[in-house]
Amino acid sequence: MTTMAGRATIREVADAAGVSRQTVSNSLIHPERVKGPTLERVRRVIDELGYRPSNAAQSLRSQRTGAVGFELNATGSATRNAVSFPFVLALSERAPAHNGHIVTFGTTSEHPLLSGYEDMVRSQLVDAFILADTHEGDPRPDWLDGARIPYAAFGRLWGRPELTSWADVDGAHGLRIATEHLLAQGYSTVGFLGWPAGSQVGDDRRRGWAAVHEDRSMPLGPEAMAVQDLGAATAAAGPLLDQVGRGGAIACASDMFALGVERAAAARGWRSGTDIGICGFDASVIAEIESLTSVALPLYEIADHLLGLLQDRLGGAPPPAAGLLVEPGLTIRSSSTR
Amino acid sequence: MTTMAGRATIREVADAAGVSRQTVSNSLIHPERVKGPTLERVRRVIDELGYRPSNAAQSLRSQRTGAVGFELNATGSATRNAVSFPFVLALSERAPAHNGHIVTFGTTSEHPLLSGYEDMVRSQLVDAFILADTHEGDPRPDWLDGARIPYAAFGRLWGRPELTSWADVDGAHGLRIATEHLLAQGYSTVGFLGWPAGSQVGDDRRRGWAAVHEDRSMPLGPEAMAVQDLGAATAAAGPLLDQVGRGGAIACASDMFALGVERAAAARGWRSGTDIGICGFDASVIAEIESLTSVALPLYEIADHLLGLLQDRLGGAPPPAAGLLVEPGLTIRSSSTR
Repeated sequence: MTTMAGRATIREVADAAGVSRQTVSNSLIHPERVKGPTLERVRRVIDELGYRPSNAAQSLRSQRTGAVGFELNATGSATRNAVSFPFVLALSERAPAHNGHIVTFGTTSEHPLLSGYEDMVRSQLVDAFILADTHEGDPRPDWLDGARIPYAAFGRLWGRPELTSWADVDGAHGLRIATEHLLAQGYSTVGFLGWPAGSQVGDDRRRGWAAVHEDRSMPLGPEAMAVQDLGAATAAAGPLLDQVGRGGAIACASDMFALGVERAAAARGWRSGTDIGICGFDASVIAEIESLTSVALPLYEIADHLLGLLQDRLGGAPPPAAGLLVEPGLTIRSSSTR
Repeated sequence: MTTMAGRATIREVADAAGVSRQTVSNSLIHPERVKGPTLERVRRVIDELGYRPSNAAQSLRSQRTGAVGFELNATGSATRNAVSFPFVLALSERAPAHNGHIVTFGTTSEHPLLSGYEDMVRSQLVDAFILADTHEGDPRPDWLDGARIPYAAFGRLWGRPELTSWADVDGAHGLRIATEHLLAQGYSTVGFLGWPAGSQVGDDRRRGWAAVHEDRSMPLGPEAMAVQDLGAATAAAGPLLDQVGRGGAIACASDMFALGVERAAAARGWRSGTDIGICGFDASVIAEIESLTSVALPLYEIADHLLGLLQDRLGGAPPPAAGLLVEPGLTIRSSSTR
């Protein structure tokens, strides 16, 4: 920087770059509207002159700031944000392409669930929200609709088919590709370790595992249920390992379950990959550290859909015609390769 | 809400609540300046009337928005943000108490390191930054000083003692309390598993382990080094377990190392806690899932110091007289209790 920050005017930048003031403004707010070489030139001049526009003036001009609120769970458990953390990274990375930016907030109380949102609305720090951890009876969509604040949810709005502002992972597809991968690797039988029946997310995942068997007219592999806890998963994995036997595989509804299966297998001297195929779900930090094959959430595609949806809503568009299911991929590691 | 959002004026809110417009404004921007019952009343009226102030107008009035940028590492590895993720939660939770809010951004390229910051400054989305992952030769402090943008760093500004805008974990204290805890639990010898010498963070942690031995005039326990990888840690832990023997303990520079020690111990049939005491560092999601005792980072104290520092800087104050070292605590789990 050759001059002190904040001293140059937009006119000086426009003159030095040989463009209009509108082009300077677009370079800052809507870079996608400015041609590459022009954008480069304007940015260089902005840097050289140390030009810094007033954010407040920008906001007044556009009548909105593009600030999107995202709640992080602050109830203490390090595992509670296992998906929200990588998702906020995806949101942060993709937001500029949608003229937005991400404002995170943390709420310590689970009840009332809305308090953090109320605080953010009251202090006018955001123009819209992206919701995560949606669940049956979630009060947030109705409250936000009532307050006329646009939202988009990562997760289906269970029990509310009329609400369409969401994108979610196609969990059935995830278990389908996991099961197909394990069969293709030559494991004899593919069992399933899931949550107790009645969990919508879990039932959805189980469907994908069952569908592969149906497609191939194979008898359904053995299955077991556990709550989301390493001890419970390890305990439930034991009988399941007996059933699939050495040379079999287990597709799991979560990475923690996959870790439990690996533990139970190691306790009987079975090597994961070689003696037992294991696949988790979420491709979380656990799976990375433990070298577990896992269904990888399409977080960037979901972030793009939700941020685009909010941009449309803030521009006055109605909610989309339907929610979006995005197919996950598979991160293959040593726990499922022989 | 009884009226449509955004229709009420600040005068209507003030009249309905029986307060001045300044009090309404303070209730939104500086709630700490408004007495509890008044604040409650004003907030109720704001909700009832559906009053929504213009964020842009607020910004112009205060000449700043209190937006604090925080970079999340987007280079792909799920383990890269093991500390940054819980830290952004602490920042998000504490920011309102410092009249701030957190804007996250992700940068995919490590070189140039500054590109993400330049983009955020150019688009004027933040007024200040909190830095993490500081390291020797870090270009960010000088660049931000040059651009006259306040910053505060989580992590010492290594090699730059004249820079004081930081708070960091007292790593030596962390290993000191970990070692003292293991000795108090009755483990015979406490070894150390750390990074190769020359890592400033690692050397700092090792000092705390060594200091306990010096204080007690005990011979130094055995030690080993590994790079930050589960396989390397598990391999390095083997000879170290031979040296401390069954009934000994190992204090580790990271949770991944602690996991490696647990793996190596399990491979020889030793139960963690009973046969071998293990303590990690960071109290990360890994430690929580694996039930590992670990040094818990004082993220909330650090967030408070850094956010307060930025508030002072944005108010015109010079940098503080010195950086701040904060003593971590210990999260005790089954890996270190007999």
